[in-house]
Amino acid sequence: MVKGRVIGRLWSTKRIDTLPQGALLDVELENGTHLVAFDPLGCGDGEQVLVTQGSVAAAFFENVKAPVDALIVGSIDEQD
Amino acid sequence: MVKGRVIGRLWSTKRIDTLPQGALLDVELENGTHLVAFDPLGCGDGEQVLVTQGSVAAAFFENVKAPVDALIVGSIDEQD
Amino acid sequence: MVKGRVIGRLWSTKRIDTLPQGALLDVELENGTHLVAFDPLGCGDGEQVLVTQGSVAAAFFENVKAPVDALIVGSIDEQD
Amino acid sequence: MVKGRVIGRLWSTKRIDTLPQGALLDVELENGTHLVAFDPLGCGDGEQVLVTQGSVAAAFFENVKAPVDALIVGSIDEQD
Amino acid sequence: MVKGRVIGRLWSTKRIDTLPQGALLDVELENGTHLVAFDPLGCGDGEQVLVTQGSVAAAFFENVKAPVDALIVGSIDEQD
Repeated sequence: MVKGRVIGRLWSTKRIDTLPQGALLDVELENGTHLVAFDPLGCGDGEQVLVTQGSVAAAFFENVKAPVDALIVGSIDEQD
Repeated sequence: MVKGRVIGRLWSTKRIDTLPQGALLDVELENGTHLVAFDPLGCGDGEQVLVTQGSVAAAFFENVKAPVDALIVGSIDEQD
Repeated sequence: MVKGRVIGRLWSTKRIDTLPQGALLDVELENGTHLVAFDPLGCGDGEQVLVTQGSVAAAFFENVKAPVDALIVGSIDEQD
Repeated sequence: MVKGRVIGRLWSTKRIDTLPQGALLDVELENGTHLVAFDPLGCGDGEQVLVTQGSVAAAFFENVKAPVDALIVGSIDEQD
Repeated sequence: MVKGRVIGRLWSTKRIDTLPQGALLDVELENGTHLVAFDPLGCGDGEQVLVTQGSVAAAFFENVKAPVDALIVGSIDEQD
């Protein structure tokens, strides 16, 4: 997984049918790159999150054909 | 997923049979790198799009052996 | 696999249900980038570890839908 | 997919049995990095090609255990 | 696949049970980065090898849950 910070939300009206309904968040990773992750947890701007990528992200959805390759799996509490 | 901007289209006549018919778009990502994504949505030059990569991109197609590792899943409306 | 060094641990209380219980370690790779890996071995800070990424990391778990894309598969003894 | 240019061919006599027979081409990508892709199309040096990566590349082969993670899926005609 | 050069071997005594027994080699890629690949071919230091990554690497093993994401599939003879 990778750590990132939520910096915004995207909307997409023109989309393929199998893209699940729900929040698509713009996440800035530690190295400065960005990715767009599906958020099932209701995270807000500035929140530190943990993102899983690849086919295991898609496995979260009922529809096994959900075209989602990045999923927020947790909000980060603290780190020691 | 990653955000990108459509900058052109590719044609490939000499191709393997399992490569699906349809638009193959040249997409420039935020970090300046390029990828070629299958476009089921009819996106045009300059359009901001959301691209899913890896095996979940291939799952979009009827043919489970479609060799497509990048799929445009949506056109981006706006961002806050 | 990639080699890395454990530099800390993360906690996530607000998380999706399918994220397995267990240690999530912050690992610094040789190239300076970081990733967060699930640790089934009880590794400690400073320990050199071997990390497997992608869907094969998720295959470790009983729950085939575990959204884990990075797994510590070993602690490194020595190298020649 | 990614665009690249064929710059040579590799031979490997000492190889695992499940690596399919056929051309293994050295491909230079747009960003200057190289990858080695299986070529079912008979592409030559200097040819611009489209390469698919990951598990969907392996799905091309009869043997579902073919250890191929990069496949030339087309030769690029032109671009607008 | 990617080309690399074997630069050493790793040992891991503290490891998960599903990590296959066999050589884990430190491989330096053309771009200077390193990865650790499972070697079924008995390659030695300095040998030029071809490495496959991701889930197709794991498919090599009898145990479908082998957590191996990088596999040496061949030793490189020569290149033109």
